This record gives sequence, C-alpha cells and structure tokens, in this order.
Amino acid sequence: MSATGPEPYDPRSFKALTFHDATLRFGDGSDTPRAYLERCLEQISAREPVVQAFVALNETGARAAADASGARWQAGQPLSPIDGLPIAVKDLLETKDMPTEMGCAAYRGNFPKRDNAAVWALREAGAVVLGKTVTAELGGTHPGPTTNPFDAAHTPGGSSSGSAAAVAARMVPAAIGTQVGGSIIRPAGFCGNVALKPTQGGINRGERQATSMSTHGVHAGSIEDMWQVAIEIAERAGGDRGSAGLFGPATPPAAVRPERLIVLETAGWAGLDDASKAVFEGILENLQGAGVTLLRRADHPSVEALEAAIAEAGAICAAITGWENRWAQRNLVNVNPDGVSARAKAGLAKAEAMRPEDYRLALMDRATAQLCHARLAPLADAAITLACPGPAPLWPGDRPGQPLAPRPTGDAIFNYPSSMLFAPVVTVPMMAVGGLPVGLQVIGQQHEDARVTAFARWILETPPPVVMA
Amino acid sequence: MSATGPEPYDPRSFKALTFHDATLRFGDGSDTPRAYLERCLEQISAREPVVQAFVALNETGARAAADASGARWQAGQPLSPIDGLPIAVKDLLETKDMPTEMGCAAYRGNFPKRDNAAVWALREAGAVVLGKTVTAELGGTHPGPTTNPFDAAHTPGGSSSGSAAAVAARMVPAAIGTQVGGSIIRPAGFCGNVALKPTQGGINRGERQATSMSTHGVHAGSIEDMWQVAIEIAERAGGDRGSAGLFGPATPPAAVRPERLIVLETAGWAGLDDASKAVFEGILENLQGAGVTLLRRADHPSVEALEAAIAEAGAICAAITGWENRWAQRNLVNVNPDGVSARAKAGLAKAEAMRPEDYRLALMDRATAQLCHARLAPLADAAITLACPGPAPLWPGDRPGQPLAPRPTGDAIFNYPSSMLFAPVVTVPMMAVGGLPVGLQVIGQQHEDARVTAFARWILETPPPVVMA
Repeated sequence: MSATGPEPYDPRSFKALTFHDATLRFGDGSDTPRAYLERCLEQISAREPVVQAFVALNETGARAAADASGARWQAGQPLSPIDGLPIAVKDLLETKDMPTEMGCAAYRGNFPKRDNAAVWALREAGAVVLGKTVTAELGGTHPGPTTNPFDAAHTPGGSSSGSAAAVAARMVPAAIGTQVGGSIIRPAGFCGNVALKPTQGGINRGERQATSMSTHGVHAGSIEDMWQVAIEIAERAGGDRGSAGLFGPATPPAAVRPERLIVLETAGWAGLDDASKAVFEGILENLQGAGVTLLRRADHPSVEALEAAIAEAGAICAAITGWENRWAQRNLVNVNPDGVSARAKAGLAKAEAMRPEDYRLALMDRATAQLCHARLAPLADAAITLACPGPAPLWPGDRPGQPLAPRPTGDAIFNYPSSMLFAPVVTVPMMAVGGLPVGLQVIGQQHEDARVTAFARWILETPPPVVMA
Repeated sequence: MSATGPEPYDPRSFKALTFHDATLRFGDGSDTPRAYLERCLEQISAREPVVQAFVALNETGARAAADASGARWQAGQPLSPIDGLPIAVKDLLETKDMPTEMGCAAYRGNFPKRDNAAVWALREAGAVVLGKTVTAELGGTHPGPTTNPFDAAHTPGGSSSGSAAAVAARMVPAAIGTQVGGSIIRPAGFCGNVALKPTQGGINRGERQATSMSTHGVHAGSIEDMWQVAIEIAERAGGDRGSAGLFGPATPPAAVRPERLIVLETAGWAGLDDASKAVFEGILENLQGAGVTLLRRADHPSVEALEAAIAEAGAICAAITGWENRWAQRNLVNVNPDGVSARAKAGLAKAEAMRPEDYRLALMDRATAQLCHARLAPLADAAITLACPGPAPLWPGDRPGQPLAPRPTGDAIFNYPSSMLFAPVVTVPMMAVGGLPVGLQVIGQQHEDARVTAFARWILETPPPVVMA
C-alpha cells in the first residue's frame, strides 16, 4: 500500500489496519501503544490533506494516553483488550477534550467539555481517543469535506464520512460512527470497512440528542477490533436508556457458517448498476458453493412479505426522523438562521408539514416491518444484501446557482430497511467495482449481534471476494 | 379564600382556579385573556413572597401574548380552547424567552433560547407561557425554596414543586410538571391539584435530557383544563420519540362511573399514618356506596401478584434512573464540582457502583411488573391508591452539620409503582388531613389516559370528599 495517496481498492490485496494482533507484542515491548499511535499519526500526516477525515485531533492527549497504556501493558495489567487502541470519534458525540461541532455552522466552537457515555466507556477501557471525525451536517445529508480514500473524486458516504474514511485510509484501526437511516453501513460499504450497526439501543448514546432509530456503531479494519470495541463500550456503559444493551461474548465470536441466508432485494435492487449486481451475484454463487442455502423473495411468502414491508422504508424512515428532529432543528434555525444548510432547511419544511397522525402511521409501518422480519427467524440464520448501491458516486461539490444534489453522500436505499428493523448489521468488504469498494451487509434478528458477527466473520474469511474492473 | 396567605385546606370548600369556564366570557368581551392574566399576576404578587413557586416570570411577553389571544377570541378565531390560558412551566423544560436553570447551581444563567417541543406546542395553541417554576435540583431530591400553599412550614412536594404550588395558590389554572419516580403525582397530592401523568411517552419531551421513565404532565385546578392542556400539546407535538403519543378526545372526557376498581396498597401502606388510612378508607366506603366494586390483594391472585411485583418499586426505579443519569451527572460534577448538591452526588456514587447487569435486572423487574399490571385489565376498570403518603411533611430546611434528610420533598413510595408501570395516572383532590391535602390517584392501563380521566372525573364529582382535622 502507498502511504501517501489513493490506490484502487481490491479486497484480495487490501490490508486494513488492525490492533488486536499488535497487542501481542505490547507485553514484551517489541511494540508499544505509543509506537502504534505514532504510526497512525504518520499515516494521518500523509493522507489527511486529501482525505480530510478529521475535524479535530488531540495529539498531546493521545500521546499521554498511549504512554499510560504502554505502562499498563508492560505491567501485564491492561484495562481491556483495546487498551491503547487509537480511536476516532464521529463529531456528533461530545468529547471533553475536543469541540463538538456536528458538521453544522450553528455549532461552530461548541465545546461542552463533557464525554458522551460511549466515549467515557472507551477511555475507561484504555482506548486512546485520538480525534473527532467529519460528519455530514447534524448527521443528515449535507456533506463535509471528506473524500473517498480510494478515489478522492468520490464521496466516502455519510453521515459517518470521516470515521469510515479514517479507517479506510489506515489512519486508525477503529472509529465510532452513528446511524439513523444508513450513516454507518453505507459509508462502511463505500470505504471497504468492517462495521457493526448494533441492535437498536445496543450501545449507550448517552447525552446525545437522538432519534428513535439512531445508534452508535463501530467502523474497523477487522471483525476482531470491531467486536472488541463494541463489547468494551457495552460492558461499561451498557445500552441506551431503557434498552438491555449489546449482548455477546467478551472476545470476538468465532466464525460460524450460516446454513440458510435470506437474500433481500430491498427497493435498491431495481436501480443498481449491472456491475454491482454481477459482483453481488458472484458472492451469492460463492456462498452456495460453500454450502449455504439461499432463500429469495420468490421462494417463500414470508420473505416476499418482508420485501413488501420494506419497499417504502426510505419514506417511512424520513417521516419518523424528520418528525423527531423538527423541534431541535426549528429552534436551531430560529436562533441561527444562517447556521443551517439549505438541505437541512428543506428537510425541516417537510417535517413541519406533518401531523401527529402521519408520525403514528409511520411508526405503525415500522412496527409492521419488524413483525415481518421477526417471522423470518425460523426460516433462516440471517439475511444479506448490499451495504450500498454500488460503488461510491462521484461528488464534485455543490455548484452555485445549480439545484442541490439530493444525495451527495450516496443513497441509503439499502440501509433504511435494516435501520427500520432495529436489526444488528455487520458490513463486510469483499466486493469491488471499478477500483472502489462495495460492501455486503449481514442482517440479524434483534439482539443477535454476536451471531451476525460470527456469520459475517465466516463470510469474510471463507468465500472468495469478487471484483470487477 | 384569602388572596394573601395560607388557609387550611378543605376539599369541600376550596375553589381552584379554572380557565375553561372563563373562555365563555371572552367572546363578548365581558372577560378577556388579558384581564384573566392580570388576576393571575395579582395573585402571584400576593402569594409569591411566601410560596416561592417561580424562578422566572415573563410578564411583558405574557401580556403581549394575552392581548394577541384576546384579539383572536374577539374575532371568534381562538387557536384552541386553551388560547389565552396562563401556564407555568417547570424549569427543567427549555423556553426561548426565559433561562432554564433546573434548580441546579451548575446551570445558573443557562439560557439556550429555545423552546421544548411541549412549550412550542403550547404557544402554537395560544397558551400564555407566564413563567418557569421551581424544580428540585435536576428533578431529583434536593429541594428548592417553594413552600406548601396551605402551610408554609410544609413541603409542596417535588420535584415539580413550583408547578404544584402555583396551581394550589391559584396563581395559574395549569402548569407543566415532569415525573420520573413521583414528581408530578406526589406534589399534586400534597397541594390538592388535579394532575395527569400520562402513559409513558404520551407528551413530547422534546429536547430535554430524559430517562426511560420520565414524562411531561399537567397540574391543573380542574379536570377540564388538565385534559385540554394535555391534548392540545399532543395534537401539535405528539408523544416522545418512538411513541404514538397521548390518545383521546379533543375535549375533556365526560365523567364515567367505573364498575370495578382495584385498590392497591403498594409498599406505602404499611408506613402510612392512621388518619390518612382512615380518610382513604372513607373514600373507599363512599365509592362502594356509589356502586363501585372494589378488588383488593386478598381478593384475587393477580392483584396479589402485582402487589408483589411493585413491592420493591422504589429500588427498581432508583436503579434504572440512577444508571440512566450517571453520565450526565458525572460530566456535570467533573466540570463544576461545587455546582451540584451533596444529595445529587450521593445518588451519583450509588449509580457509579452499578454494572450493566444490575441495570438489565432492574429493566427485567420493571417489565415483569408491567406484565402483572396488563394481566389485570380484564379484572377491573382501573386501580386506585393514595397519591402521596399522607399530608405533606414538615420541611424546616437543611441544618448545617446535621445529616441530610433523605426525602425533603416527601416520599414517592406511592408513585414509583405507577411510574414503573408506564401507566396513565390522574390525581384527584378529595381528602384532607390536618388542613393539608392528601391526593388520590387513579391508575389505568397504558394508553387509557382518556378512560382514566373519565373515571377520575366521576370520582371527583360523585362520592363526597373525606376530611380529618
């Protein structure tokens, strides 16, 4: 890999940055958390001018934390397996040592000097909170400056743009993202990350203003680091208020071959490019070759029922999230009319046209889809589909005087369903089209995060990747 | 009634302030919202020096809002039946025109200049947001300066201390309170208010940091104003994120006689004073005399099962709420060590000794109790018990060098159960002991807010009050 510039992505050769294996050398001092951190900082220096993943770095604090971690490893007393892991945190989460600007002009300089519950837990586990990553404005659609690490002319996806890109550019082994509609899984798919979007409520969102569908999740270079980061947070800070939180083993689940997988089309399939269809079909063939039985919408009425229930997932998610955000956004616009993008204002106008009854109906549609999904549990181990609608689209930036592009960070059409189902999702990178990653997502029943992770690990490790030029 | 000082409370003679009847005179100008407001302001001038219900008043804004309302009524175009209603808002809710200090030194001067969703809805309905009322610190146990309007040596209850007292002192016809464990129903019981604590999620909490058990609710002088305020908010801002919101008619439900009521002891009965036991038993006799069948724990194993499931409600609620608040409070203490009371710090220490598993177990206990409650639906129309453990206790204030009184605003022992059940509760004032109010609460199944209101209205209007000197 070049340290300095983008190369085309190939899942057969790309080596993501990993941490779990490095810790094996921390005990005898042949590697140290500080040295690991310095390598991350070097990579950031080399790639950041083009990738632009970060809005803030706390190098001094990170070096001190890494040195403290090193002393613990030397003493044989690490706080956890992620003690010393340099982690980047999406700039929607508050951090006591860095501002929290949420990609929004109205929050420029916002610095509440407190830690989100998940960030608190990361520090308790010894992780090195290195920086804050670019988010699309308020977790919405208006993009930040981050570019795709494999081709800077393309979007990295969003809203967890910087977290996905920082992992893909090998700047950090893991990063925290957040998702409401598709903000973890889609950028992970566009950037070749492994990522976990846990069961709704799985990881404590703490003090963050949040909607009924928002989750914290983990972008990583490996399944091992992904799981370990997630479970270390959950063991310390639990899940959201009212939620039991992420369940699962204290160390990464071993790979497990799924017997039967449902293949979901979602509303995204119809508009997908032929190359992405072909690589996905190639993966399906490889899975069948490895002994996995596939179940599609034509094969069982319950699969068809779920496909029907998620066909309008985008509209349902938009209604729910728009309604839930309208007061926060109305207040923000009233106080700071120029501090919010035209894209956000357009979304607010739609939400303000809603009545409580519209919201109730959307909640009912969501609940119906969840029942349709639960009904599939006896039929198959998990479901799979694409994590993103093909490779990351070109993003040339807004042009003065032109209409705003509606989805500058790409379309979440493959993500709304699993978000709306409150399902655990793991993204695995094993497809490429035209030198850009195309992610695969594995979707489980609620609270089966560990089981989905085990299947995802098997899928990542067993059937070969599929690439088209 | 004296306008200037406390008199002993007697539910047979006390006339609470009402609004719904005043609006009948707004059309022909024989009364106006502005005149109504001025009467409220006069009453505040007379009583506030002792009652100390308010932390902020916006008289100028209120007068302008009342005048605008008057013009709408004159034109025959009020925005809603509560157009012109002067309302007080607990100082946990943000208001764009007044600070939000939450009874906490760390938040002194906090003025985010935005409206909570419920406050926004009140303004949309034409209500006159007159002032912010005293809350116990952060909605917890450390009290503010408010005194009981019927005897200033006693607490008004908390944490919605100022909202309850402002209604009881006839300063406003309605006020917004919030409850997690017992912060609406207990002060309403101590102050002789009518009050609605809706089904969990019934009223949009908007931007407020909130726990899985917190609700917005309404204190009022009458069932009519209570319901109208609640439904006007819900019609505009709906319920909490992910909740369908308050269901019910657009105008106050008519009185309905319940056929069968469950009488709940809760853990509070054993320690209740004899006089309060006697007045409650008097109410029960009157209910039976009016044809209502009562069902107690000895009468049915399912009632006994619920009593058993709520016996430890206080500990379960404390565990859940402590865990959910710990990050916010830890951050607050870290940033501002002297800005938080010793009471709050003691609660934080307990919460920080918890593990995620403790929280999960508490959630399971809560869910079990909810199932036990749901199972009673076919057995009876609703449940009743006291709203508070007898009359409001004396509160002489903290004494330097002495241990802190654990419950300066009274014990929520009768409130934890209905809070934990996510049940709609209406408090009705129809008992007095020693010149102080003792409330009765009517508890329904989730989403039966309107039905419980209809029963509460019948109970308030039909069997006679019971008083002991």
